[in-house]
Amino acid sequence: MARNTQVNADHNAPPITQTLARFVATHPSRGWSDAVDHEAHRTFLNWLGCAVGAAHHEAAEAALAAVQVLEPAPQATLAGRTERVDIASAALINGISSHTFDFDDTHLKTIIHPAGPVASALMALAEKTGASGRQVIDALVLGIDVACRVGNCIYPDHYDRGWHITGTTGMLGSAAACSRLLGLDTEKTAMALGIAASQPVGLREQFGTMTKPFHPGGAARAGLMAALMAQQGFTASPRAIEAPRGFAQVVSPKCDWNEINGELGERFEISFNTYKPFACGIVIHPSIDACAQLRERGVKAEDIERLELRVHSLVLELTGKKEPVDGLQAKFSVYHGCAAGLIFGRAGEPEYADDIVNRPDMVALRRKIVATVDDRIDEAAVEVTAVLTNGTSIALRVDHAIGSLERPMTDAMLARKFHDQADPVLGAAQVEALIQACWGLGQAGSVQALVELARLRS
Amino acid sequence: MARNTQVNADHNAPPITQTLARFVATHPSRGWSDAVDHEAHRTFLNWLGCAVGAAHHEAAEAALAAVQVLEPAPQATLAGRTERVDIASAALINGISSHTFDFDDTHLKTIIHPAGPVASALMALAEKTGASGRQVIDALVLGIDVACRVGNCIYPDHYDRGWHITGTTGMLGSAAACSRLLGLDTEKTAMALGIAASQPVGLREQFGTMTKPFHPGGAARAGLMAALMAQQGFTASPRAIEAPRGFAQVVSPKCDWNEINGELGERFEISFNTYKPFACGIVIHPSIDACAQLRERGVKAEDIERLELRVHSLVLELTGKKEPVDGLQAKFSVYHGCAAGLIFGRAGEPEYADDIVNRPDMVALRRKIVATVDDRIDEAAVEVTAVLTNGTSIALRVDHAIGSLERPMTDAMLARKFHDQADPVLGAAQVEALIQACWGLGQAGSVQALVELARLRS
Repeated sequence: MARNTQVNADHNAPPITQTLARFVATHPSRGWSDAVDHEAHRTFLNWLGCAVGAAHHEAAEAALAAVQVLEPAPQATLAGRTERVDIASAALINGISSHTFDFDDTHLKTIIHPAGPVASALMALAEKTGASGRQVIDALVLGIDVACRVGNCIYPDHYDRGWHITGTTGMLGSAAACSRLLGLDTEKTAMALGIAASQPVGLREQFGTMTKPFHPGGAARAGLMAALMAQQGFTASPRAIEAPRGFAQVVSPKCDWNEINGELGERFEISFNTYKPFACGIVIHPSIDACAQLRERGVKAEDIERLELRVHSLVLELTGKKEPVDGLQAKFSVYHGCAAGLIFGRAGEPEYADDIVNRPDMVALRRKIVATVDDRIDEAAVEVTAVLTNGTSIALRVDHAIGSLERPMTDAMLARKFHDQADPVLGAAQVEALIQACWGLGQAGSVQALVELARLRS
Repeated sequence: MARNTQVNADHNAPPITQTLARFVATHPSRGWSDAVDHEAHRTFLNWLGCAVGAAHHEAAEAALAAVQVLEPAPQATLAGRTERVDIASAALINGISSHTFDFDDTHLKTIIHPAGPVASALMALAEKTGASGRQVIDALVLGIDVACRVGNCIYPDHYDRGWHITGTTGMLGSAAACSRLLGLDTEKTAMALGIAASQPVGLREQFGTMTKPFHPGGAARAGLMAALMAQQGFTASPRAIEAPRGFAQVVSPKCDWNEINGELGERFEISFNTYKPFACGIVIHPSIDACAQLRERGVKAEDIERLELRVHSLVLELTGKKEPVDGLQAKFSVYHGCAAGLIFGRAGEPEYADDIVNRPDMVALRRKIVATVDDRIDEAAVEVTAVLTNGTSIALRVDHAIGSLERPMTDAMLARKFHDQADPVLGAAQVEALIQACWGLGQAGSVQALVELARLRS
């Protein structure tokens, strides 16, 4: 028997689905500043480097093996691999790869990783439709705007409830981006958003398993299929996002509609996207940064008598693992991050290999680190004092780690990060050409050349 | 920055995911009564008739057109159609068709339509693997048990919040059924349930659009792919259903774990499945039934001076449309339902055609119906008084409509319903053979013959 009970429903929500659809369908190409357009290129490049880097991880291998049961048509490229699969499956697999190392982008206000769902769907679809690079960049900016604005509307309550917000807003970003790329009108774009709204993908309980990176992949696929279905006349509620029993109100007790409507077409959320320099949780980044700075000042591991950290309590709560025994545990160890910063000056995926984690000099240095909690220090900051064997000491403070909005990674750093991840897969020469293709994407008449460079030649 | 806030989390939930996985993986074949086994056959037959009946509806056409963009491999049959597509897409399309007319089965305790997500995935997978009919029936019983038990756990709060519970538990039922059919062990079945748990499909806001029947289809596909991924070693949380940030606690404030664990393997939820005799919301069924009974007693439309209904207020709240102008509106009109019952003795999909809705005798009879609200009458009951032109009157009361658990449709009625839906698509002779194949499914060495009969020969 149908029931009509719903607590605290907001029956007067503005027409969010329609507003977003019109924005996505009609906003002018490159209708934003050069800075926004450049950030879109940085976002795409960072995403692709991550996808190539994890292309042969066992998560991608297992997902691809399942997809192969479907005998997919060879329509679209898998970054860093030889196989081609249908576009929906390519969106899935590339989305999984791009998030596997948790090394992709972060929209800090919502902790959404926006490129995974959006770019993974776009690259697959663009390869099939023969889209221009400009169309891809346009769709990327608009799709990420949709996902992050919906995220702003429901964060933090939605995330606190247990949803993995990357995959539970990402299907809307993917649907928006793919609708734009397909040239759908406002009405059909609204239908695509509506079909996607019924398919949030992601629970925080999955963190630490392969299903975590599945979330952006699943969202990419769901949004892509939603756009294809809308194109063919499939219908959904035109108020699917905002209605009392629509997406936002169902998945979050907090719905701030102004976060979606405010400054739409003027403020672009991709402007606030950030990229991780280090392959671990963002809470460790200031400490790694500080230790890498010590190294730049000439401090060596063997000079260290004791390394003192003062950090916010959250840092030790989340990453207080003192004696990690493998790479997975090391990701949750601020001690390991500091040791890597001081010994290697970096903490990429290679510095989380099991043999590095267990190297005697790393173990020894980790044991010299003493962390103290001080909640007067911001979560994004750290104070480090290196007490040296010669009796002197060096102190420094990091207020914003490299990679933050205040101290963004430079383009050169992003290219270096790309090489670090992708060279072992594709070789340095192909990777360099691929990086250049990413920087030039907005000017490219087609995505074909870039896609060819992203593929592993057999 | 990661947040740890969650209100009212239950950290002591029993190991639901593990328990269900072990049950699905290890419960003996046909480990239930003959009555349960027969109900499984009735469920499968009713599902397939609905899927064939709506196979050429515009919802199925649009979804299939989108799937064709993927150039799917011809792996599996679409009920009532000539095309073959990959097994995941077949699960999707058959799931959509089976729910399009809202004429499929209902687990009344949760108003889940359980066959759509489960049987749609099973038939596609069984055709590919060459499973026996017995394996399919076993998997159907177990998959429906999982979906409905999880539904019992979270209903009604989950539904009240706005979720379309058929698609938001169906992916678990589909994953369970497909895991069983693939012969996955307990551990891998738990992973399949875990991967599926991240993918609830369905919002009540979509009611009245094609995305409503998309929900069981999307859930069927999600569960099938989850099982394939688990088979290949893809991982998920082993507590994905019950953990504080797992499925159940995230989507419902109410989680009664005993609804899942209680009498597991003894009480089978498929026993409580029901089938609609009439192609409309269940709240109208008692009134249609009563009017059909008047017709059986010899009352004709032209004898009617006035037809008085006494019903629970919910009936008019949901289906009070007095002057419907087309079939879609007529589905929400208890008046139309009564007129169809009296004039045709039935209210199948043909009685909701636009031209029937606008036929003068139907319009005239609807206008003679007076409905009165009386909340002392149960939602499942009705009191009808026909005041005739000759001055006499006939009163009758229906406490449980035909199709309810108390007055189930007979096997013959189900076969007739199947014919009514499927004959226009496949022809009566092929349909009769198909019906016989459904009744004999549990004894069939393979599903192949049944699947061939479900296909439209070009």
